[in-house]
Amino acid sequence: MRLLSITLLCLHAVLAFDYQAKRAKIMRDESLMSIGGQIELTDKESNVNNCLMQHKFQEVDYGFSNPQYYNFSRHFFSYRNIIPKSKAYKIIRDMPKGGALHIHDMGILSPDYLLNITYMENLYVCFEKRDIKLLFANKTPEAKCHTTWQLMSEARNNSRNVTKFDAALRSHFSICVNNPDVIYPSIKEVWDAFMGYFKRVAPMMTYRPVWEQYFYDALEKFRKDNVMYVEVRSVLINLYELDGTAYDQLITAKTYQKAIKRFMKANPDFIGAKIIYAPARNVDRVKLGEYLQLAYRIKADMPEYFAGFDLVGQEDLGNPLVEFLPQLREAAKDLNYFFHAGETNWYGTLTDENLIDAVLLGAKRIGHAYALPKHPSIVKEILENDIGLEVNVISNSVLALVHDVRNHPLSLFIAQGLPVVLSSDDPGIWEADPLTDDFYVAFVGVASRLADLRLLKQLALNSLKYSALGVKEKDLAIAKFGRQWDDFVNNFDCSRYDQ
Amino acid sequence: MRLLSITLLCLHAVLAFDYQAKRAKIMRDESLMSIGGQIELTDKESNVNNCLMQHKFQEVDYGFSNPQYYNFSRHFFSYRNIIPKSKAYKIIRDMPKGGALHIHDMGILSPDYLLNITYMENLYVCFEKRDIKLLFANKTPEAKCHTTWQLMSEARNNSRNVTKFDAALRSHFSICVNNPDVIYPSIKEVWDAFMGYFKRVAPMMTYRPVWEQYFYDALEKFRKDNVMYVEVRSVLINLYELDGTAYDQLITAKTYQKAIKRFMKANPDFIGAKIIYAPARNVDRVKLGEYLQLAYRIKADMPEYFAGFDLVGQEDLGNPLVEFLPQLREAAKDLNYFFHAGETNWYGTLTDENLIDAVLLGAKRIGHAYALPKHPSIVKEILENDIGLEVNVISNSVLALVHDVRNHPLSLFIAQGLPVVLSSDDPGIWEADPLTDDFYVAFVGVASRLADLRLLKQLALNSLKYSALGVKEKDLAIAKFGRQWDDFVNNFDCSRYDQ
Ligand SMILES: [Zn+2]
Ligand SMILES: [Zn+2]
Repeated sequence: MRLLSITLLCLHAVLAFDYQAKRAKIMRDESLMSIGGQIELTDKESNVNNCLMQHKFQEVDYGFSNPQYYNFSRHFFSYRNIIPKSKAYKIIRDMPKGGALHIHDMGILSPDYLLNITYMENLYVCFEKRDIKLLFANKTPEAKCHTTWQLMSEARNNSRNVTKFDAALRSHFSICVNNPDVIYPSIKEVWDAFMGYFKRVAPMMTYRPVWEQYFYDALEKFRKDNVMYVEVRSVLINLYELDGTAYDQLITAKTYQKAIKRFMKANPDFIGAKIIYAPARNVDRVKLGEYLQLAYRIKADMPEYFAGFDLVGQEDLGNPLVEFLPQLREAAKDLNYFFHAGETNWYGTLTDENLIDAVLLGAKRIGHAYALPKHPSIVKEILENDIGLEVNVISNSVLALVHDVRNHPLSLFIAQGLPVVLSSDDPGIWEADPLTDDFYVAFVGVASRLADLRLLKQLALNSLKYSALGVKEKDLAIAKFGRQWDDFVNNFDCSRYDQ
Repeated sequence: MRLLSITLLCLHAVLAFDYQAKRAKIMRDESLMSIGGQIELTDKESNVNNCLMQHKFQEVDYGFSNPQYYNFSRHFFSYRNIIPKSKAYKIIRDMPKGGALHIHDMGILSPDYLLNITYMENLYVCFEKRDIKLLFANKTPEAKCHTTWQLMSEARNNSRNVTKFDAALRSHFSICVNNPDVIYPSIKEVWDAFMGYFKRVAPMMTYRPVWEQYFYDALEKFRKDNVMYVEVRSVLINLYELDGTAYDQLITAKTYQKAIKRFMKANPDFIGAKIIYAPARNVDRVKLGEYLQLAYRIKADMPEYFAGFDLVGQEDLGNPLVEFLPQLREAAKDLNYFFHAGETNWYGTLTDENLIDAVLLGAKRIGHAYALPKHPSIVKEILENDIGLEVNVISNSVLALVHDVRNHPLSLFIAQGLPVVLSSDDPGIWEADPLTDDFYVAFVGVASRLADLRLLKQLALNSLKYSALGVKEKDLAIAKFGRQWDDFVNNFDCSRYDQ
């Protein structure tokens, strides 16, 4: 009888062991499959990781116990300002993050930077009902103005209160508001504001000296944010001089080349930058033909700086890729594609199908791919063809695809180990960091509570792996990154983040 | 030269054909993989489908072109009242939907039904600051009251305005509000209101005659909503009589049996109902042991009416299943499990891990499984073990897991062809239909624009396939459903939905 009891006890123990083993295997399999799950940390990296995770757990566990104070379930604008207090954030800010592969020409720098531009000479302003127009010129512009054009310097001098004047001006250079859920009740209102920004600032920004300096300063900002490589998408608007001279779009592309060369000379530790020509998608086939011709010209003119081609604009409103198939299939022989695709909440619409065509057209990377999890066949193609997914969590949140970022598909991409790169889209327009804010929100708000430094390291490495860098360039880039990473790890001091 | 051109032209045509073939294959593969994708519609079903899809396309395409007026990106409370105008809704309402497998004892019927109960004799009320207490008794209750207990009939008579009195009373029986984003800024506030409902109404509802009638009337409501089978989860509170006599919890279970028998006698076309014993999860192991003992007693007493066991309550706050492993593994030999698991936005927390234990404990179905897409290994287990997923979209939206329902994981479950059943959780508390509203939101708001009657038919069939019905019962149920379905299809008249 006693023997039987012992046998039963043993049996129970064996079964319990079996259960726990199965459970552990599931957890381990999921961890191994997830992005960064295969990385093994060195002792020094583990040291960083322990510090990082201690702070991450604090934040996550506080939110878990106090969901009414949890930031990431709310709009980015409601917690944007307190992010810099987070210690996990500070560590991520100091961490080398590799490259930013999905950003747009006029969306990188902050409203303060744009406000500074308005202090330049020869800027004219036209104050209209709710909007403003801006233009550099050596005489009063003839462009339409429902009131009158005046020199910005004079308008500012004539204002009773320069601080107020500048604050009002600055508000035109950002879409941040205190009550986003009221001001932007749907995707329409926020996209209207977002497109309004580009329309408003483009005439000021395309003044040649401004455009040239903007990208140089953008690179500077990225470098300070510990991002050492950039691929910028640009609509490549024609630049102009004070006297109204307008340049060919190729000159706009060459401006990037010039800025990059100048920046690399001053900052040899930087990896570099390339451009993706990304004009508006809401056009007809004739216009698309012109786009492609320009793309060929740029490629011929500056092959090392030209990464490829994309189409931009609110995807639901623009033409789907399928509309341009014959042309895009033909051009695929010569151009690398980095299509925005599936930046939508719609399922089973033509917009949603852009994911299929992006993959079939041989895209090297896909911008957003927000709708991807609804397409298991495309997920397979993504994995088989190792197509990079450029994820921009804050952008998707601000531009009304998702409210609580824990519902962002990035969590699934991470879980399934998809080839993700994190980027920031247009951080200046919502007053976010060049890249750190996006890394922070993704790491603390979207990824598993258990996801650690290995995820961050893999994301940084992915940003080089899936870049448009050539084979040799890539080796150099990874070597440069490795040195930065080692510096970060070797000089890491957890106590620095204590205050 | 001419021959060469022709050859090239042909080559292009062949390549274009190849592209389109690949594209079509991806679309077809995804359609076949999705829920209902294997169903072939009869001519008469196609007739229904054409009508249904015409109305669905109208709604979806209007929303696509006018996102600022799109309902499903907003809170359910903002469009709840206009749903009945939708023609797609009306068709789905008339369609046989099979069974509802995830609903809770006191959450089924509307506030109007509860208001009616307050017209019964012997109901006492205690009006406190913001809340009310309710109790049936044959003399003034001794239970705590910060003001005074009075007979509801007298309170109502003494009120100056019965309409206002009843409206105020009714508001305690629903969590619907006009400004949910303000009143319920986070999951905490809405869960507080939700739990407040149960606490408030339980003392009124557990008066034996009320409890008995409630479930009978609930079945009636389901039947009118073209739902012919129900599995109800109940905490099985002790019932009482006017003189304070309290009954054993087994009696509460037997009340269900009684109501079901009575209802089946009056409605032989109905398929039936079973109960799942689902007490609060926020308890210790001793209490869990008592739960399991009661489950055994019910099973022994009424095996045909007892489906199995579950644990309920806000999952993030309750104990995770792993806490109870030894007991639950032991009881798994005798009890079928239908665990709530993964009803959470958290990733990598103990709550999230409930999905692992639910599967390893051999659950027949899982309640919500909202967090499932983050767990590829569990998805595999779900498919291999054919575990039903009880999805309640409106519940998840109202209870603050997701804002824009297009982000609900149901879209991924549908895409991957997972074993989904749709249910409604506590439709009375948010004033939704017993089941049609949930079908409507899932079909028009969550599923692909292209998802059609085949999806709906499969979901209805799944609700029987994944039910706790025995083998023979299931055959009978599917036969009954088939007759109802044929009736619906044969008598379908699209023009009926025109006005
Ligand atoms: Zn973009
Ligand atoms: Zn439930």
